[in-house]
Amino acid sequence: MYVGIDLGGTNIAAGVVDENGKILTQASVPTKAIRPNEEYAEDMVMIAKKVIADAGLKISDIKSIGVGAPGSIDSINGKVYDSDNIGMDDFALAEYIKNGTGLPVFLENDANAAAFGEYAINGNGAESFVFVTLGTGVGGGIVIDGKIFRGFNGTGAEIGHTCIEMDGEKCTCGRVGCWEAYASVTALIRQTRKAMEENPMSLMHELADKEGKVSGRTSFDAAKQGDEAAMKVVENYARYVGVGVANMINIFQPNKIVIGGGISKEGDYLLSRIKKYADNYDYNRSQEKVKIEMATLFNDAGIIGAAFAAKARV
Amino acid sequence: MYVGIDLGGTNIAAGVVDENGKILTQASVPTKAIRPNEEYAEDMVMIAKKVIADAGLKISDIKSIGVGAPGSIDSINGKVYDSDNIGMDDFALAEYIKNGTGLPVFLENDANAAAFGEYAINGNGAESFVFVTLGTGVGGGIVIDGKIFRGFNGTGAEIGHTCIEMDGEKCTCGRVGCWEAYASVTALIRQTRKAMEENPMSLMHELADKEGKVSGRTSFDAAKQGDEAAMKVVENYARYVGVGVANMINIFQPNKIVIGGGISKEGDYLLSRIKKYADNYDYNRSQEKVKIEMATLFNDAGIIGAAFAAKARV
Repeated sequence: MYVGIDLGGTNIAAGVVDENGKILTQASVPTKAIRPNEEYAEDMVMIAKKVIADAGLKISDIKSIGVGAPGSIDSINGKVYDSDNIGMDDFALAEYIKNGTGLPVFLENDANAAAFGEYAINGNGAESFVFVTLGTGVGGGIVIDGKIFRGFNGTGAEIGHTCIEMDGEKCTCGRVGCWEAYASVTALIRQTRKAMEENPMSLMHELADKEGKVSGRTSFDAAKQGDEAAMKVVENYARYVGVGVANMINIFQPNKIVIGGGISKEGDYLLSRIKKYADNYDYNRSQEKVKIEMATLFNDAGIIGAAFAAKARV
Repeated sequence: MYVGIDLGGTNIAAGVVDENGKILTQASVPTKAIRPNEEYAEDMVMIAKKVIADAGLKISDIKSIGVGAPGSIDSINGKVYDSDNIGMDDFALAEYIKNGTGLPVFLENDANAAAFGEYAINGNGAESFVFVTLGTGVGGGIVIDGKIFRGFNGTGAEIGHTCIEMDGEKCTCGRVGCWEAYASVTALIRQTRKAMEENPMSLMHELADKEGKVSGRTSFDAAKQGDEAAMKVVENYARYVGVGVANMINIFQPNKIVIGGGISKEGDYLLSRIKKYADNYDYNRSQEKVKIEMATLFNDAGIIGAAFAAKARV
């Protein structure tokens, strides 16, 4: 048995995960950022002990604890270098939790952990596997030969910051033309707002009013009801996602690409369009095609992935 | 001892390579494309035997033969699927050479072989290594954990066909905005011609006349003499290369990126500019930077890489 902890901006979630990646017990507490580093860590020790007890297990039944944390992570030494959203920096998080539980603790970047979770459950032991998460930003994780690929300094797999338009949109990272500046949900909302301004009669206005805000769903909901301006937004957005997916295909030709993040709940309506555009930019014309799928684990990916990433390192 | 064979569009080159990657003897014959498949293969058997004899060795002193071939390669089964430039398709090349020499023969895509050669000699056992070759096209090879990374269907590492400009220049592959359409020497020549049209007084005209053609060197030679239009061409070209190099950095954060192809002979004049632009698009701000170097093996990379790729599979 293993424990996985997902340190998110909103909640700290933990679960006991069995050998097959099944979550046996699960619990969460609010992150309440920004607090002192030790308080987060103390909550993580507490919640780990809670899910272990809830499962009717003893500490000694657990082989390791894996933690997925946002920001810049030193997974070798178990330290959080710098995590803006929760205000943690230069903190030996793994050691703190190890001291509090007596268990081996391994730290991982949260996107890498989620990727490893999707890989463990949906990867079928793939030789190469790419996970793309479309959210506030565009994150990703790469699994090669069953191991998380991190690059020599641990900051690899920043696939959201590959350039798809040299003189394109400004990205939050300060550069221009990043995939994230086109394919994140933040970008989709910007694209939706622009289309709404240009199309004052679009159904998107009514739907946004009803929801109280313009969201990632506004254009999708209106498009499904036949609104032409919204259909254009969705089509363009799918193209932006597709171009980046095709870049991953042309580089990796992985066994599988899985697309996660809240927007992946749009399911086949979005996936079929992403596939169409990815295929337009796919260089491979003769061999078997890469499988592209929507994620299935959603929030559980973080817990399972953190647990399994640690399991692989015990 | 190992034999490496590089099946190129112009020459078939072979060499005996020792354990350290040193070429002991080397020979080549003209490819004379397009001929029947068996004639190429017969020449490869002949030239392999010649370099072995030239080295004062017997067939039994050689552990394996590695072959690098252009086009779409099935390296598992040793077959050339489809190689337009030499008109070879669906041919069991490895088996033919095995029958002719009695040695184990392994086939590899030529860009992968060259990448593996550069890795073997200049990679210092890097965990991850990316080779970019700027020539008629933009090719590449990826080495991870000491193995050539090919993707699940063997057509991976087509880094020249990653999109850097969604609605950009047309690429020879039929798509638009590929890195190759900006950073190949073919693209550089197109960029040079355009600048020459716009700048009838540029020194580039005189240099092209002297050389008898516009080449990849025209803009570089003129820029080094202070020609402003040429300096702009070089600067833009370096930016195009740099954007794609940064994409490789943001994805892989490899220990090293090596840039090959004839243009790499421009040395630090080009490299310093590529580094500047790659750094502009590099997401990593806090950790140690990826090493970017020019290739050192040039044509020998194909022979050494083919030999060592086979060596790794014996």
